[in-house]
Amino acid sequence: MKIKLFPTLNSVEEEDLKGTTAVVIDVLRATSVITTAVYNGCLDVVPVLEIEDALTYKNEEVLLGGERRGFKIEGFDLSNSPLEYNRQNVEGKRIVFTTSNGTRAIIKAKYCDTILIGSMLNAKYLADFVVKNGSDINIICSGTDGNFSIDDFLCAGKIIYEINKLKETDMTDFATLAYLTYMNNRENIFEYLKYASHYKYMMSIGLEEDIKYCFKEDILDVVPYFKDGSIKKYPL
Amino acid sequence: MKIKLFPTLNSVEEEDLKGTTAVVIDVLRATSVITTAVYNGCLDVVPVLEIEDALTYKNEEVLLGGERRGFKIEGFDLSNSPLEYNRQNVEGKRIVFTTSNGTRAIIKAKYCDTILIGSMLNAKYLADFVVKNGSDINIICSGTDGNFSIDDFLCAGKIIYEINKLKETDMTDFATLAYLTYMNNRENIFEYLKYASHYKYMMSIGLEEDIKYCFKEDILDVVPYFKDGSIKKYPL
Repeated sequence: MKIKLFPTLNSVEEEDLKGTTAVVIDVLRATSVITTAVYNGCLDVVPVLEIEDALTYKNEEVLLGGERRGFKIEGFDLSNSPLEYNRQNVEGKRIVFTTSNGTRAIIKAKYCDTILIGSMLNAKYLADFVVKNGSDINIICSGTDGNFSIDDFLCAGKIIYEINKLKETDMTDFATLAYLTYMNNRENIFEYLKYASHYKYMMSIGLEEDIKYCFKEDILDVVPYFKDGSIKKYPL
Repeated sequence: MKIKLFPTLNSVEEEDLKGTTAVVIDVLRATSVITTAVYNGCLDVVPVLEIEDALTYKNEEVLLGGERRGFKIEGFDLSNSPLEYNRQNVEGKRIVFTTSNGTRAIIKAKYCDTILIGSMLNAKYLADFVVKNGSDINIICSGTDGNFSIDDFLCAGKIIYEINKLKETDMTDFATLAYLTYMNNRENIFEYLKYASHYKYMMSIGLEEDIKYCFKEDILDVVPYFKDGSIKKYPL
């Protein structure tokens, strides 16, 4: 089983993905939101690129969620805080979702055969799934505004660490680096996270509670699966 | 002073480089060879892309050096082993040099105003130079065959660590990761290097002595400087 890790969305080429299994990560916060919403019983999450795309759903029975620059979008029902995606708000609902980085990465991954959503919240369960599935995997860190982001990298390291607990793998050097960084710092991962520029930005706009939640490990036993334009709990 | 780190040669765009100062790293072994040759008094090192380009110099008073797949090239005078670039062999000589990764990265950096050659051997002296120079810097890891390589990343971390000992800097997340990885593992950096796939490949073809040499830190007080197609000791 081979593991390849992409540092940013921009580092992924269509040809890298065709016919593969991908795990997409935007741990602060898009893929943590999606994992939470799917766990809490939403009907599905529909990722879209632009605010205008989301607004075309406005009159349907949907919730519009997402952010730009970390803030809730005007006219939307929900922000990009995973704490809003509780069972009371989302159960049985379709969520149309657009964010600066994560939803772009998910949509870019459409060339893959299998697209899974990764976060700290579901890392262990996701690792179980991919090991049982047995395919080689590409892990895509969304990054922040096109740049590498330490937060996504640590989450990738956690997922790779959980996979390697179950099965020996053949990793690229970049996947190995993520594995070692997580493994060597896992007792104080939150301290390591503080070096991430995206952490500093989120703290500056008052999102400390969201960050703390997004770095809880293995609390949601769910694998969100993207197929035919929407994300649902696996098995579909 | 800003520090940006590029994981591979392929991740660098021409527009990233225009007007900047760059440090190019291919620690195993091209930039370690160049640092050694310049320290040992060669006239200059002329990096070229292709074997054919190098062979056009054959009848001149030059040494041809380099490798493909780690091995000496037929008809060349020197391989890519830094141990061959001693004073006896190189003093006063022009060296025409082509390798799989490092010389490509140096030539790609031609859009920069200032191009410096980095290795473990000269990391501290290079850090002194760039801090006195004061410009923002781009550090380019050559990588191996287009892929990220832990060996170059550790060398970047060492250079960034030495710069930060002299001056507070504003680093991208990827530069911060290199800094932390080197700092947290600097007492056993050779153990960390063993995770690099390029280390494993080089060991498999019998190059252990070269690797040991390339990971000696701060033994050569020289800054190789690339200008007008050739690399010389600074000041030129």
